[in-house]
Amino acid sequence: MAEDAKQGPPQFIPKLKGKKVIIRLISGGQPITGTLEGYNPYEIFIQTVKGQVLVFKHAIATIEAVDEPKGFTIER
Amino acid sequence: MAEDAKQGPPQFIPKLKGKKVIIRLISGGQPITGTLEGYNPYEIFIQTVKGQVLVFKHAIATIEAVDEPKGFTIER
Amino acid sequence: MAEDAKQGPPQFIPKLKGKKVIIRLISGGQPITGTLEGYNPYEIFIQTVKGQVLVFKHAIATIEAVDEPKGFTIER
Amino acid sequence: MAEDAKQGPPQFIPKLKGKKVIIRLISGGQPITGTLEGYNPYEIFIQTVKGQVLVFKHAIATIEAVDEPKGFTIER
Amino acid sequence: MAEDAKQGPPQFIPKLKGKKVIIRLISGGQPITGTLEGYNPYEIFIQTVKGQVLVFKHAIATIEAVDEPKGFTIER
Amino acid sequence: MAEDAKQGPPQFIPKLKGKKVIIRLISGGQPITGTLEGYNPYEIFIQTVKGQVLVFKHAIATIEAVDEPKGFTIER
Repeated sequence: MAEDAKQGPPQFIPKLKGKKVIIRLISGGQPITGTLEGYNPYEIFIQTVKGQVLVFKHAIATIEAVDEPKGFTIER
Repeated sequence: MAEDAKQGPPQFIPKLKGKKVIIRLISGGQPITGTLEGYNPYEIFIQTVKGQVLVFKHAIATIEAVDEPKGFTIER
Repeated sequence: MAEDAKQGPPQFIPKLKGKKVIIRLISGGQPITGTLEGYNPYEIFIQTVKGQVLVFKHAIATIEAVDEPKGFTIER
Repeated sequence: MAEDAKQGPPQFIPKLKGKKVIIRLISGGQPITGTLEGYNPYEIFIQTVKGQVLVFKHAIATIEAVDEPKGFTIER
Repeated sequence: MAEDAKQGPPQFIPKLKGKKVIIRLISGGQPITGTLEGYNPYEIFIQTVKGQVLVFKHAIATIEAVDEPKGFTIER
Repeated sequence: MAEDAKQGPPQFIPKLKGKKVIIRLISGGQPITGTLEGYNPYEIFIQTVKGQVLVFKHAIATIEAVDEPKGFTIER
């Protein structure tokens, strides 16, 4: 709580930059898997095996890191 | 009302931090169950049995605490 | 109109506090029935027979008061 | 255009106050029919034959006036 | 780019005013066809063969002009 | 990080202007394919083989460039 006051709220997406992620969309259907290459307040940019994909955050339900569970933790 | 003026509106998510929750998404489908580890204005971070999951609040319909109904109450 | 200028726009949710409500979600499916215990600009807190539920307003289509139609009116 | 500069953008919902409307939700399903009794920036309040219903604007796809097509026009 | 700095971002909806359009909703289903009579930041007002319809922008996926493809172009 | 401070967050849509794109909507269904001709904070304007289409960003799940994977990269 004390460090929250100093740091602002935790940011989870920056920790995923450069990692392989699974993105599940709010519409269900096939998840998007690839490397999270960039982000801004509204969009995420993913390198998939089929090419680059711009994903709007408003369309995303969940993001999970894959294959590297040790490397993706939040400070508490 | 008087204490609202002092405290601002009630915040429910902070009370769920560290607790086991069931998150139901607006798309229906399988709920997400895990421990609420962190949050910010747009996202919630959950530790599930399969790993860590970033859930966008815009994709969530409801959140319920599980297994500890006594420990999760709001002041009125 | 004159009193709107004085009062601001009408607020409907405060009138529902403490009342039994039916909440229908935008996704359809089973409505949530319970007592509206609290709210803030983004969330509503409901006591159901199964426990407490945080409902995000963005997931709600409609809210109706139940069993007490006389007690829930708006001023016009 | 000149009068837009003076008046601000046209507001359609105020013209519907007190009129019978059909509200179609983004989720499809059964429309809500009733008298539009009130509104604020986020919500609309409808008197239906079954009682009063708070409808979140974010859940609405379209609103149409019914039975009184002459009485509901916009200035152009 | 230079003229963007002067003009602000392009606005597409004003160019559709008075034209016949097809509006497809995010929920799928039957498109709405009619003349775009007015708009504000959140809503669009359409004259259809069945009457006037207020359409919330948040419910719209796409808008296309019909029958007059020559008359609806953007400057680049 | 240092250059983020200077540049602001990366913007992906400007890099797609003038390119052929596939737009997938949050509702699923048929993707929209065409040339991205313009954009503003809320809307994207596409030239398709059937004509011009205004697409609301809120309705878009993903955008991909097609046929020119070399020409569409982000700086990192």
